Amino acid sequence: MTAAERLASTGFDINHLPYGSFSTAESGPKLGVRLGDHVLGVAALLGHADAAPEDVAATDDANLDTLLTRDRAAWDRVRAGIVRALTDPALAETVVAEAVPLSEASLHLPFTVADYVDFYGNEFHASNVGRIFRPGQPPLTPNWKHLPIGYHGRAGTIVPSGTEIARPKGLRPEPEAAPTFGPSRRLDIEVEMGFVLGSAVPQGEVALTEADDHIFGLTLTNDWSARDIQAFEYVPLGPFLAKSFATSISVWVTPLAALDRARTTPPPRDTPLAPYLDDSATPAWAFDIEIDVVLNGEVVSTAPYATTYWTAAQMLAHMTVNGAGLRPGDFFASGTISGPDANQRGSFLEITWGGSEPLTLADGTEIAFLRDNDEVTLRARAAGPEGTITLGETTGRILPSR
Amino acid sequence: MTAAERLASTGFDINHLPYGSFSTAESGPKLGVRLGDHVLGVAALLGHADAAPEDVAATDDANLDTLLTRDRAAWDRVRAGIVRALTDPALAETVVAEAVPLSEASLHLPFTVADYVDFYGNEFHASNVGRIFRPGQPPLTPNWKHLPIGYHGRAGTIVPSGTEIARPKGLRPEPEAAPTFGPSRRLDIEVEMGFVLGSAVPQGEVALTEADDHIFGLTLTNDWSARDIQAFEYVPLGPFLAKSFATSISVWVTPLAALDRARTTPPPRDTPLAPYLDDSATPAWAFDIEIDVVLNGEVVSTAPYATTYWTAAQMLAHMTVNGAGLRPGDFFASGTISGPDANQRGSFLEITWGGSEPLTLADGTEIAFLRDNDEVTLRARAAGPEGTITLGETTGRILPSR
Repeated sequence: MTAAERLASTGFDINHLPYGSFSTAESGPKLGVRLGDHVLGVAALLGHADAAPEDVAATDDANLDTLLTRDRAAWDRVRAGIVRALTDPALAETVVAEAVPLSEASLHLPFTVADYVDFYGNEFHASNVGRIFRPGQPPLTPNWKHLPIGYHGRAGTIVPSGTEIARPKGLRPEPEAAPTFGPSRRLDIEVEMGFVLGSAVPQGEVALTEADDHIFGLTLTNDWSARDIQAFEYVPLGPFLAKSFATSISVWVTPLAALDRARTTPPPRDTPLAPYLDDSATPAWAFDIEIDVVLNGEVVSTAPYATTYWTAAQMLAHMTVNGAGLRPGDFFASGTISGPDANQRGSFLEITWGGSEPLTLADGTEIAFLRDNDEVTLRARAAGPEGTITLGETTGRILPSR
Repeated sequence: MTAAERLASTGFDINHLPYGSFSTAESGPKLGVRLGDHVLGVAALLGHADAAPEDVAATDDANLDTLLTRDRAAWDRVRAGIVRALTDPALAETVVAEAVPLSEASLHLPFTVADYVDFYGNEFHASNVGRIFRPGQPPLTPNWKHLPIGYHGRAGTIVPSGTEIARPKGLRPEPEAAPTFGPSRRLDIEVEMGFVLGSAVPQGEVALTEADDHIFGLTLTNDWSARDIQAFEYVPLGPFLAKSFATSISVWVTPLAALDRARTTPPPRDTPLAPYLDDSATPAWAFDIEIDVVLNGEVVSTAPYATTYWTAAQMLAHMTVNGAGLRPGDFFASGTISGPDANQRGSFLEITWGGSEPLTLADGTEIAFLRDNDEVTLRARAAGPEGTITLGETTGRILPSR
């Protein structure tokens, strides 16, 4: 295996280059880029590559915050500068000297989250949930095919991969009795794709054709959910405490440019759409990304993101069509990703059909929802320019209720 | 009338002292305090009053942001220092020289909003909405008396009083037909009391007895709402675009201490509460505040905040009981405030009963919802230590759809 082949096998070769925020024993947090099992400071790399001073300045920060205030052209120049620095033989020694092994780096939230919107854009998931929560009624609500349903989540509790998650407490429904207060008994995951936004739009209205200008990159997202708390609280204003205790994202943000080859078309639309959502002329906003759900080391499901009905471009057009402004650091997630098959479901609610069909693990144990000390890791693969890109994983372990 | 009486008549005398962010032709934004029809820089006042350097530093900012990172003891010291500066005869000349007439000041958002939660805590409002939106069903959902229902709103579209509001566009339901896209036909207000939070709690769980430590102050809030967009989108995940285009707050934040005499007990509870919400030992978290709804200069309703079932302390305990952290600058609103009487309703949805009982204005015009160019101002009065306190008004004019 050549060095290049070894690097490609990590899923983090020169074609990927995700961004993160790292610190070491010697230096405070700065914006970094990952290459294989190393991270390198972006501003320093750009300096070596003789990038324009404004591009060096845009990356001379603790994380992506400053770069997200810039535009697509700047994002492309920064990525090109990083590639230049990493491939110029004359810079090889300098670069090697600056590469920090991941084992010596602490990784932080890659950007400061402004507003967080969580969508519900996957038809298989929404239908499954409808069947489980509202049996006897049509699985999809009448609005579902007309707009990407979404709601605001809590930006302040988005945490980086690796953060431990304390089991939340709240009011749980009881059959034929008043609700009781205590730790959630139905703690769950939601496998989602997260989208990091940049380049401000003070008064909204991002057209489908402008999505490239504002979607900076993608990050694997686990929107932890307490199903019992959710079932009691969610009518009529939607989920609140069932979700707001924690949402985990990867410490690595994959730039949109790295996923060009993974672009594909979404499922066929069977309901006419309002012009601002009609993507028949701009379809390639689905991504062929497979996401493994790994419970304590065992793959229990593989969710195919490409099956998601509503695309990221449609979600962005929708959330701004009412004039709501977009700030750098705004973040939205796709909603739980499930495929048509039973082994493609992105939540334990669906995998175990509301707990009624427990999942048998390799060791013979049966589980319905997450137990204390369970660890869930999301791992994802996408087609890259050459070979496969591995998205930065998102992991978290459940701690007992505080 | 003495000078003191004249000052008291403004509602902004020495007993009130709300905070805001102001700039002038000569100087950039800074944290100010309002006295009568003037605003004064807080850091400068504290300097004159020989306040502790850390308290001067906490107020030497463009707005409340730094002060909100501090604790209740610091907030009390800052207020005491301001009172000292404004009442020390030896400082009178200095203070007068620094007072900027409001006519020469630009006023900005008084703090940077972290997360925004909107509650639904008033029983009269929730019952009215239930009867209008879900006729034939019980007006309150089964969870309503067990917990303060709430959801996250969009922090990035909270705007200061005076900001013009463009009529939002979205998908509107049509009888017996597919929804149509266009400007909202049922644009509404929601009269609410907003609560500004400070002093971080990284892992949530603010007890009822700790509410004083985190509720910094109050600000009159108008949560503009597009009822047609809301009706189509809100099942099952709650309101989204119907609310996210704009929420107006006053440019003045009234410190909690100024409202001591307005404290009262909430309506009697008729459903047993979980311990974290049981406020029988800490009841005085309602406030006797009357809020006028002024449409183009005409008072069309007066909403009594004290009728709100769930208190701010309960809302804060609820939103953190699942472990969700609290950041300085977090903000929550009470939900629409309505009283039992027809002339005490805090939304046009209720005032005109879903548009079916139009409101006749003084000039004979009948209206159901807001028209382009309508201006809505909220004005509020509360009992202060001596006489009446006038909360900072919240106003906005409707512009035609962009």
